[in-house]
Amino acid sequence: MDFLSSITAKKLGKSLTLQQIEDFSRAAAEGLVPDYQLAAMLMAIRLNGMDARETADLTMAMARSGDMLDPDVDGVPVDKHSTGGVGDTTTLVLAPLVASCGGKVLKMSGRGLGHTGGTVDKLESIPGMQTSLPKEEFVDIVRRIGCAVIGQSAELAPADKRLYALRDVTSTVDSIPLIAASILSKKFAAGAKALVLDVKYGTGAIMDSLEKSLELAMTMVDIGTHAGRSVTAVLSGMDEPLGTHVGNALEVKEAVDILAGRAGGDLKKVSLFLGAHMLCASGVTKTMEDAESRLEKALDSGRGLEKLAQMIEAQGGDPRVTEDLSLLPQAPVRRLAIVRKAGIVTSMDTMRLGYIAQGLGAGRKTKEDVIDPSVGFIMKVRLGDRVRPADPLAEIYAKNDDDYMAAAQAITEAVQITDDEPAPHPLIYAVVTREGTRLLA
Amino acid sequence: MDFLSSITAKKLGKSLTLQQIEDFSRAAAEGLVPDYQLAAMLMAIRLNGMDARETADLTMAMARSGDMLDPDVDGVPVDKHSTGGVGDTTTLVLAPLVASCGGKVLKMSGRGLGHTGGTVDKLESIPGMQTSLPKEEFVDIVRRIGCAVIGQSAELAPADKRLYALRDVTSTVDSIPLIAASILSKKFAAGAKALVLDVKYGTGAIMDSLEKSLELAMTMVDIGTHAGRSVTAVLSGMDEPLGTHVGNALEVKEAVDILAGRAGGDLKKVSLFLGAHMLCASGVTKTMEDAESRLEKALDSGRGLEKLAQMIEAQGGDPRVTEDLSLLPQAPVRRLAIVRKAGIVTSMDTMRLGYIAQGLGAGRKTKEDVIDPSVGFIMKVRLGDRVRPADPLAEIYAKNDDDYMAAAQAITEAVQITDDEPAPHPLIYAVVTREGTRLLA
Repeated sequence: MDFLSSITAKKLGKSLTLQQIEDFSRAAAEGLVPDYQLAAMLMAIRLNGMDARETADLTMAMARSGDMLDPDVDGVPVDKHSTGGVGDTTTLVLAPLVASCGGKVLKMSGRGLGHTGGTVDKLESIPGMQTSLPKEEFVDIVRRIGCAVIGQSAELAPADKRLYALRDVTSTVDSIPLIAASILSKKFAAGAKALVLDVKYGTGAIMDSLEKSLELAMTMVDIGTHAGRSVTAVLSGMDEPLGTHVGNALEVKEAVDILAGRAGGDLKKVSLFLGAHMLCASGVTKTMEDAESRLEKALDSGRGLEKLAQMIEAQGGDPRVTEDLSLLPQAPVRRLAIVRKAGIVTSMDTMRLGYIAQGLGAGRKTKEDVIDPSVGFIMKVRLGDRVRPADPLAEIYAKNDDDYMAAAQAITEAVQITDDEPAPHPLIYAVVTREGTRLLA
Repeated sequence: MDFLSSITAKKLGKSLTLQQIEDFSRAAAEGLVPDYQLAAMLMAIRLNGMDARETADLTMAMARSGDMLDPDVDGVPVDKHSTGGVGDTTTLVLAPLVASCGGKVLKMSGRGLGHTGGTVDKLESIPGMQTSLPKEEFVDIVRRIGCAVIGQSAELAPADKRLYALRDVTSTVDSIPLIAASILSKKFAAGAKALVLDVKYGTGAIMDSLEKSLELAMTMVDIGTHAGRSVTAVLSGMDEPLGTHVGNALEVKEAVDILAGRAGGDLKKVSLFLGAHMLCASGVTKTMEDAESRLEKALDSGRGLEKLAQMIEAQGGDPRVTEDLSLLPQAPVRRLAIVRKAGIVTSMDTMRLGYIAQGLGAGRKTKEDVIDPSVGFIMKVRLGDRVRPADPLAEIYAKNDDDYMAAAQAITEAVQITDDEPAPHPLIYAVVTREGTRLLA
């Protein structure tokens, strides 16, 4: 393998050949070249880009760098992935709903990262819940129940594992081809045949412009086309936390409340929208209208909540949490932060809100940190609300009074209250499929 | 030190601050950050460049990363540097000539690299010659004799040492700011107050366009201006070997022949031109005319040859080689390659000629290789010569007949003989000083 020639080619802005890309992936997976050469290549890719063919080749090479699962789940295995948001617990709402409509949700989830929460961390706040299952057991649960959620396995896409770690320390995270290949290689290796991507845009999203979010969405749909798998990308808003609850047990509680018909709002809307695309993408339904009406029925009839209980039980957790939320971990301090001035809620620094939850103990600052499932906060205001002093701003769940005080102050700073109307903040911007991009906002 | 932020800044195309550049140099010199982060930074610099201020800051930071010598040589210490050529042994001609005119030539030289020869390797073909001297002794010889040539010390500019090694394996050698900073940091650390750079352009040069050669020349002169040191850059042609002799002992022989008045040609012309700039740059003479006439006189009177003998003796070598060239190592096989077709010598692949000498044993393919000082070849044709079959093409000095055969075949292929006149191939293209660029071709 002449890896130096490959670095030179990318440095000069050339397209890498399939062979060069396969060598790159193998070099990363098997440690065949030193980290400094991988780092030089990553920076060359970050600055000179990759075309659609290269990106698809890299995705498949990384997917094949470890085991490629082809699970028999008695249906089309469908997965969903979010680029990361705050209060974004769509998985816990949609997985049971989609399953109760006949979908086969094979969900690989991550842990919290930076300001964003992770489904695996949220599920682990349920007593007994296992998210690290042998793959046979995982597939068996999906076959029987229709859905299961596990953590990402290190054996899948080992090339991505090494490159992901290096990108983090070489300032090459923000490369659209590398982000796209990283996400999809793991999903394809895990056996997803249909995939719905939730690409976030707004003050709580990683992509800092609508153009880049759209480019990422289109790049991933293109890769799906190259790879012969159904990939749909939804561009959704993240200008405020999607749900009102931020924190692990708190987000489980909100998901249960929605499935029990006690709560609604943006989290419910986006969950149903993504879920409907999952049913269409996996061929269970033919039209979005049909998919949406079946999901509504599953929700209204309580079958979604029942399915969540079944999944929790199958994964070793206590299914009674779906009936009795007091079984979830409870934070010792639970106090309100209040609004300090009159006006309209104009904008929120949603990324900062995510970091405030991390600061309370809901997320990790370093890999070694242990999270506290009970902490977080419930936002009491939404964008556009007219508020007065002493109105509740957020209910904070903290380990102690000091943490509460710090979080209350920080949330007050992160929420802007002015006399102006807020800028438009659409919930769904666009849907990208292999047929094209449909703008909805 | 937040080196990741520095990588990010350069990735985004920003200028690095002085503090960021000093951190970078210190990180390289002291091993404070891992190689993969240095590699990412090098690729970001290669692709996004550095402005004049950054390049000057990097040069001085790297110079100061180890010892900074300030030698008392009883005059202005002047050095010369070539970006690397074939048959390019100007140092051995000009150092004694400049010294015999009152210059103080403090010459730090490299070993052969790739297709180019190195002055240190050439000098070591002289029996007894030492090129690794304690710095006090080196300075003392310059003070007494007027010139000395030693190899580059690892203690000088340690930041460059680490970055140079990394650039080689990360495809980031071809960055003008990095080349310029690497060259000048070592020269400034060694104490050169005046410096004449010989930037090569042509089929045997590393830079592949006249624009890039000129950009490198101007970049280095700018750094000199920022650093308060006199830097002059000469852009000279490398479309054929500069001298006729290629190989270590053979190049010593040609230098002696020139100093003895027995040989002339392009090597002599360029040596006198560079030497005159050295005399001007170090303030020994006021005008180029004065400098050139003094150098001519030193040559004609034999004082240059005498000075070479003194320098060789001072560095432990046998000064009788300047009188008796048979004391130099002699190759066992010495045979002609001949011209095979009639026509005009239109062009030469000079880089290939350099590699042919390396293949004979005059250079190293890996750092561990031991060179053979006796091997190489003497070109018997120059560009524009009209030749006939059986005319001598080159006289090859080889270890054995197989080596001779391979070299003869390769030289025949590297020299193009056609019916056309050769393209113009100026010897001196331009001179760049802080006052500006003077085009001479």
